[in-house]
Amino acid sequence: MRIDFADLAPAQRYRLLAATVTPRPIALVSTWSAHGGDNAAPYSFFNVMGEDPPALVLGLEATRGTGTLKDTTINIRDQGEFVVHMVDEPLADAMNLCALPFPPGTSEAALAGLALVPSSLVRPRRIAAAPVAFECERLDLLPLGPNRFIAVGKVLAMHVRDGLMDPATQRIDTDLYQPVGRLCTPFYTRTRDRFALEVPPLPGA
Amino acid sequence: MRIDFADLAPAQRYRLLAATVTPRPIALVSTWSAHGGDNAAPYSFFNVMGEDPPALVLGLEATRGTGTLKDTTINIRDQGEFVVHMVDEPLADAMNLCALPFPPGTSEAALAGLALVPSSLVRPRRIAAAPVAFECERLDLLPLGPNRFIAVGKVLAMHVRDGLMDPATQRIDTDLYQPVGRLCTPFYTRTRDRFALEVPPLPGA
Repeated sequence: MRIDFADLAPAQRYRLLAATVTPRPIALVSTWSAHGGDNAAPYSFFNVMGEDPPALVLGLEATRGTGTLKDTTINIRDQGEFVVHMVDEPLADAMNLCALPFPPGTSEAALAGLALVPSSLVRPRRIAAAPVAFECERLDLLPLGPNRFIAVGKVLAMHVRDGLMDPATQRIDTDLYQPVGRLCTPFYTRTRDRFALEVPPLPGA
Repeated sequence: MRIDFADLAPAQRYRLLAATVTPRPIALVSTWSAHGGDNAAPYSFFNVMGEDPPALVLGLEATRGTGTLKDTTINIRDQGEFVVHMVDEPLADAMNLCALPFPPGTSEAALAGLALVPSSLVRPRRIAAAPVAFECERLDLLPLGPNRFIAVGKVLAMHVRDGLMDPATQRIDTDLYQPVGRLCTPFYTRTRDRFALEVPPLPGA
């Protein structure tokens, strides 16, 4: 079945893209501003793009139907710093609460019971309970459309929960690290149902 | 445990980012060029970034250690068109074969036993067996670092395997659609181990 995107309203395109470009990693993003304080919100239009520079991207939107920029977008634009936290199974419910449309100036992390601790190199505090956190500075904030931006962040430092990584080899323990991924609303996926694919030899090589 | 990224070599940063920014959706990308013909390669530095315009991003790299651009990068730069296929469980082994470093001019899809059929709006052919395919035109190819680009593609059309989508409602059947995600090498995750999180009411609202 073929669907021409020119024939669809943006909301229809959103539903189809969000339902099929899956599973998506989830960034719980903390930012800070002088007037609004701590902010936290989850984004699954998110991924790593490279290692030199080490770069993450976020697809940021205005609030649907209003054109008003969300706090995360404003804070990344104005402050240039943010922290990306990966979401594992124990953090999923709190992440879901942080997605609610609280008024500006609300600390979603506090309302969700998440303790914040100082970051090492950036102003926004980080969520202590996250298995992995990346302290980032904004490299770019690209306008994509009337209500969309792509934020490109450079990773300055990473925090890994004690026990998840072997300090000597920097290997992540794939049995202990259980990030969740975003699927079609309202679903998420666990990542315990794994399989391995080894790279086969090149035919004829 | 805190890791300063300035202290790490790019290869170490790559391993840490790829092991923790998970699960990543997988794009099996087909491109075409006059001298090289059909090309196909998988990328998990990939996601949707927005719906207006409907945009996908790919983190494209030069071949590690050589600085030589990969065929996908060259073809997106020169031809401006590509097709992104989502990878489900039946397609995983063929996707893994397409990741091998075949010489330029090789049709990875043909070697992996994947039939190609004409696309509707772009020149690169699409993989008939894919559950979902997006015909894309290049909006941008942003240099990120010496060996990295972010390709931004606008989705022109989408193909969905018969039976996966209700034509009337455009709802995806989440029991039938079984995309796989990329985890820490050599692992992938299935997406059958789902859970639902409903958006709770706003406290006090």
